[in-house]
Amino acid sequence: MIKFEYQKTARVASDIMQKQIIDLKPELAHMHDALQKQYSSEFASLYCPFDQEMIAQVKQLVSVKLRLQPAMLVVVGIGGSNLGTQAIVKALDVQGIDVLFIDTVDPDQLHSITLKIEQLLTAGKEILINVVSKSGTTTEVAANFKILYALIKTYRPTNYRNFIVITTGKESELAAIAEEEGIDMLEVPELVGGRYSVFSAVGLFPLLLAGVNIDQLLIGARNAIENSFNGVDNTAVTSAVLMNENWKNGCVVHNFFFFATRLEFLGKWYRQLMGESIGKENEEGKAVGIIPMTSIGSVDLHSVAQLYLAGPHNIYTSFVTVTNFDHHIKIPATIFPNLDSMANGKYLTEIMHAISKGTQQAYIDRLNPFCSYTLSAINSETLGWFMQMQMIQMMLLGKLLRVNPFTQPNVEKYKIRTREILGE
Amino acid sequence: MIKFEYQKTARVASDIMQKQIIDLKPELAHMHDALQKQYSSEFASLYCPFDQEMIAQVKQLVSVKLRLQPAMLVVVGIGGSNLGTQAIVKALDVQGIDVLFIDTVDPDQLHSITLKIEQLLTAGKEILINVVSKSGTTTEVAANFKILYALIKTYRPTNYRNFIVITTGKESELAAIAEEEGIDMLEVPELVGGRYSVFSAVGLFPLLLAGVNIDQLLIGARNAIENSFNGVDNTAVTSAVLMNENWKNGCVVHNFFFFATRLEFLGKWYRQLMGESIGKENEEGKAVGIIPMTSIGSVDLHSVAQLYLAGPHNIYTSFVTVTNFDHHIKIPATIFPNLDSMANGKYLTEIMHAISKGTQQAYIDRLNPFCSYTLSAINSETLGWFMQMQMIQMMLLGKLLRVNPFTQPNVEKYKIRTREILGE
Repeated sequence: MIKFEYQKTARVASDIMQKQIIDLKPELAHMHDALQKQYSSEFASLYCPFDQEMIAQVKQLVSVKLRLQPAMLVVVGIGGSNLGTQAIVKALDVQGIDVLFIDTVDPDQLHSITLKIEQLLTAGKEILINVVSKSGTTTEVAANFKILYALIKTYRPTNYRNFIVITTGKESELAAIAEEEGIDMLEVPELVGGRYSVFSAVGLFPLLLAGVNIDQLLIGARNAIENSFNGVDNTAVTSAVLMNENWKNGCVVHNFFFFATRLEFLGKWYRQLMGESIGKENEEGKAVGIIPMTSIGSVDLHSVAQLYLAGPHNIYTSFVTVTNFDHHIKIPATIFPNLDSMANGKYLTEIMHAISKGTQQAYIDRLNPFCSYTLSAINSETLGWFMQMQMIQMMLLGKLLRVNPFTQPNVEKYKIRTREILGE
Repeated sequence: MIKFEYQKTARVASDIMQKQIIDLKPELAHMHDALQKQYSSEFASLYCPFDQEMIAQVKQLVSVKLRLQPAMLVVVGIGGSNLGTQAIVKALDVQGIDVLFIDTVDPDQLHSITLKIEQLLTAGKEILINVVSKSGTTTEVAANFKILYALIKTYRPTNYRNFIVITTGKESELAAIAEEEGIDMLEVPELVGGRYSVFSAVGLFPLLLAGVNIDQLLIGARNAIENSFNGVDNTAVTSAVLMNENWKNGCVVHNFFFFATRLEFLGKWYRQLMGESIGKENEEGKAVGIIPMTSIGSVDLHSVAQLYLAGPHNIYTSFVTVTNFDHHIKIPATIFPNLDSMANGKYLTEIMHAISKGTQQAYIDRLNPFCSYTLSAINSETLGWFMQMQMIQMMLLGKLLRVNPFTQPNVEKYKIRTREILGE
């Protein structure tokens, strides 16, 4: 399903690997124990893919909302409240309800979205709004929610509440609003942090409406968790160790290089996962952190490859290639045969694979350190596996770097300054 | 129009600044002379915004093609052949013909595009194809062109050639095809490199069809060139010096932080400009290069800000904020007044500005080095100015780092490996 390779390319000696993998065993045992505690340990998010009650509640609410025959779902959320959902929707060729994501307070972006909503509502069609914020205190989400609330109340004065679903923490101001207004609510457990929340109601409710097979998605996630604990061929542990060792060797950037256009948003989701989980002061007061970066093959070969192949050796790369795309397109053999003759009569997939392999070979030639993931196909199950694996890896990397992978203490700093300015 | 600020934030001493600015004077004089040589110096791209003949030719061809009443334009190009065009189309609220960009050979992406083309053609609508490749040897472009050529020939067997425009170098295989087939061709001058080509026919032809005011765009570009040579308040020189000094101080990454969603693609264009121009071995054989990165406010404050505000001090940032957005949206004052009360009754633009300033204040608090651009609005002229300024800056940065900013010698390395694999 997913093959992870690194032995000849990641440039970490096998004895160092083995030692570090052994060193992580107590942490793995700790995580395994935590899973039994469900939502009451800091590893709470690991329980999401196993939470049958939550999954049933999401499915029930989706079936209720589908009776309204919505033409569009608008997800109002930012960061951990929508990056994972967006990554999955954009990676899959989904057949469900159209989904629009509102995140930032860019007025021009919001204008085009409200225009679309008004067109649908005046044409007699229905839209669903899913407001997602665990804390319920996110400025962008509050602002956009108020604007959309006013809009839908204008067009559907009697039953507008039916078209809203709030996903939030039990104690938040949004939960109080849901209670007071009689708006449907899905709960985000207190200890499931935003960037680890994609397999909670945060992701599952909009994903199911969008047409994603969430059962397959969660099978993938559970397989990733089981793979991480059984330890024989343990991708999360191996990958965390490689990341750490390459960082110690000067790779201050981690580049996810996706050879599939649809996976670009997975990189955006991963940026938060890495940025917030390990970018902080560690236990010794040292500022640590690896800068997450995304590249798309083959576009970025015509953009940043020159730097990758001749610039400083400060990037560690994870290549992601896909064995089977959904579509097969052949390059005509007889049209302009002298124009790039090597590709005549070949399938685009073959070209894509050759470019991906050619790039990896050039990396080997230059001793650029990398690992590679090969996905048999882009589907719910492989995505579930991949994302869960990255989340476990980040928890382990937190352990190696001696940082708490579940906090983001310094984000408050810009928020305080922003509030000062707004309060002026 | 555009304000550039750095004095209190970029963390470079003013005497160092002054010395370096003086050191760059001969290079500026050299560039100024080069402009008189039109397309026959390595600074050829600087002449594009002044080339009235080329501009007239583009306008003439656009007026001819508009008579075909095309419903859609498909730009087939990769890297420098489409990144600048995409950046401008996506930044502006254009009202012309819909434009689709095909770059990589991702079969799923190409499938959805060919599906759309076939739907239009069977419905009796017309599409234009603009194939862009200076060398004419780019695998991705050749492959996609052959597939689209076969497609349009099937649906419009008698006049398919009318719907194709080839933009290429005079000596390329594509130019030979244009000649042989009687397909309209626009020329890319030999010394105008891909990443500097947005104001040549490469960008101008699709941009004019897309509804961009190219006259305003070129006014902006010419103003940037004149600003760079008169030297009183010289943004390109100042910015290049700041970038170089911060790089010497350990900032291995440059982060363009755009507080406007529509500018995200400008970051993609800039990645190539920086990656290929300065990521290479310098004259002393040292591997130099700054890693280009893009962030979007406020989304990325909920994603990577934790790392920016607490991780290693290895990032130099350029903030870009927009004073006036196209739309004005107010947050209702009376809906859920307890939910994030600070924003009640405020405009989204105010919130966006407060977040941008709050972030910059947090950067100052933490001594994170940065400069900032303030655009009065996102329009053709400010974009033209901004992009031309970045290109001049990159040429100067090449001088400071002692690399040739116009070559990309190492890109060949992965291409050779790819060809070996395809030839197996």
